[in-house]
Amino acid sequence: MSRIVNVAAAQMGPIALDEPRSSAVSRMMALLREAKDEHADLVVFPELALTTFFPRWYMVTDAEIERFFERGMPNPDVQPLFDLARELSIGFNLGYAELTPDGQRFNTAILVDKAGQIVGKYRKVHLPGHFDNEPWRPFQHLEKRYFETGNLGFPVVEAFGGKVGMCICNDRRWPETYRVMGLKGAEMIVLGYNTPLHYPPAPEHDYLQDFHNRLVMQAGAYQNGTWVVGVAKAGREEGCDLIGGTCIIAPTGEVVAECAGLEDEVVVAPCDLDRCQEIRSNVFNFALHREPENYQLITATKGAVSGDTK
Amino acid sequence: MSRIVNVAAAQMGPIALDEPRSSAVSRMMALLREAKDEHADLVVFPELALTTFFPRWYMVTDAEIERFFERGMPNPDVQPLFDLARELSIGFNLGYAELTPDGQRFNTAILVDKAGQIVGKYRKVHLPGHFDNEPWRPFQHLEKRYFETGNLGFPVVEAFGGKVGMCICNDRRWPETYRVMGLKGAEMIVLGYNTPLHYPPAPEHDYLQDFHNRLVMQAGAYQNGTWVVGVAKAGREEGCDLIGGTCIIAPTGEVVAECAGLEDEVVVAPCDLDRCQEIRSNVFNFALHREPENYQLITATKGAVSGDTK
Repeated sequence: MSRIVNVAAAQMGPIALDEPRSSAVSRMMALLREAKDEHADLVVFPELALTTFFPRWYMVTDAEIERFFERGMPNPDVQPLFDLARELSIGFNLGYAELTPDGQRFNTAILVDKAGQIVGKYRKVHLPGHFDNEPWRPFQHLEKRYFETGNLGFPVVEAFGGKVGMCICNDRRWPETYRVMGLKGAEMIVLGYNTPLHYPPAPEHDYLQDFHNRLVMQAGAYQNGTWVVGVAKAGREEGCDLIGGTCIIAPTGEVVAECAGLEDEVVVAPCDLDRCQEIRSNVFNFALHREPENYQLITATKGAVSGDTK
Repeated sequence: MSRIVNVAAAQMGPIALDEPRSSAVSRMMALLREAKDEHADLVVFPELALTTFFPRWYMVTDAEIERFFERGMPNPDVQPLFDLARELSIGFNLGYAELTPDGQRFNTAILVDKAGQIVGKYRKVHLPGHFDNEPWRPFQHLEKRYFETGNLGFPVVEAFGGKVGMCICNDRRWPETYRVMGLKGAEMIVLGYNTPLHYPPAPEHDYLQDFHNRLVMQAGAYQNGTWVVGVAKAGREEGCDLIGGTCIIAPTGEVVAECAGLEDEVVVAPCDLDRCQEIRSNVFNFALHREPENYQLITATKGAVSGDTK
């Protein structure tokens, strides 16, 4: 038995500060067509795919900040992508900055089915970076300043014949992200990211960025028996190098498809959702093997507690 | 600043069914001397290091089963190892099958300091395998039959100038294991394992055993900013092939030392416990970045729940 979803990971190269949304949308439409030519059912786009990665700049006024945000979805800029996807009968996952009617700002992703309906929505929980301007950095990472912590949990939605979980960028580093969705039965987790190659607080680890990117996604896939699709915005964007490493990972943790470069690029893989059971019925049979009474500290505390001596 | 602990990972080759404990102890003493020659402060031995991996056989009577268990620790068989370690001023981590005075059986490890004192004790929480005889298997994996679930949590003890966490074998596959100890401030996690190359329920993944072994330990190290020392009993033991892959992993997830073969072998690495802060003060600054209100499912359920549609 098999339930195959053909998934396209649609990496994007840099988006310039002055690049209009219409240009980003056109690029995504080209990637969507390419994915369709390869018989994809679902295309996964990066985090904040409509604009440059603006948290790299310190801004003060709402006007400055909110020009990077979407007030509705779809909106006229993005409507052509929705229309093309429905015409081609292909779904997609799209990351963007969301401004709600009451003025809340979130780092958001939506999952759109083949009929053009938004069937899933996620607001980023693990916001990386910092709150205030830190001029010593060559560039800022002000996600904690510009976004509120997501308030939709880690959603797992019925779509594409299976259960699809959603997260964004830094969420992928946290094993809790995958575990919560694994416990909800996620068979595929889709995520986009913008990850600078240079990490100013610990530059001695810059050479490990690609390794860490793969490590956390492969571990999350294996430890939960789920497909993981991780999609980068890559390349040199406004003087800041972003890693690539877009890939599709099987429930065994194996990378089955990956992008080669740092530009707009599509890779497609047939993902058999029934393969999740190879892992979840065996080594990671949660009902048989998990021991939650020993995990209480994970939800009982946010930061580290002092070590015990038991 | 640095707090360097020289750690030896002391892999062992197979232990035959008829090999007496005195022989296993002699082999460990040789490894201990070799480690001391390389200036080790701490030697980590495998899981169940005194006997063959007996859960591979189905046994019924207490007498059959309990001949593989230790009634006290140290006991006369193991005393020479304690004596030598104290003489050489070197600590060790040792796995063995524990029979308590009231008849409980655990898969246990102890941490012994340079003065020969037992400063840490752990009883395995994640027992893999099955409860009953399954004759279709080429060999059994009856840990769930022979052991009770550990009742000491995941200990993190002050030792060797830092905070040392303890777990055993299958525990290393579960991100919860590392996270609980990470939240307790573990700077080094020591563990031994016996991992058959062949996994009868999913033999199609046998070629991934070494990959999975590394993946989970590297992810656990990185995601918690802790050293991980994983030590195998390796090689063909009573007709069953056990993987090797003994290694020492830095808080960055990088393997800094590894065994090459499947026999008795020592590798030593200087582990600077202060390096944990490179990770824990930054990407995995728990107090700053964790979002436990979104993790509740991890402790609220043992097995998977149905997916939501939020």
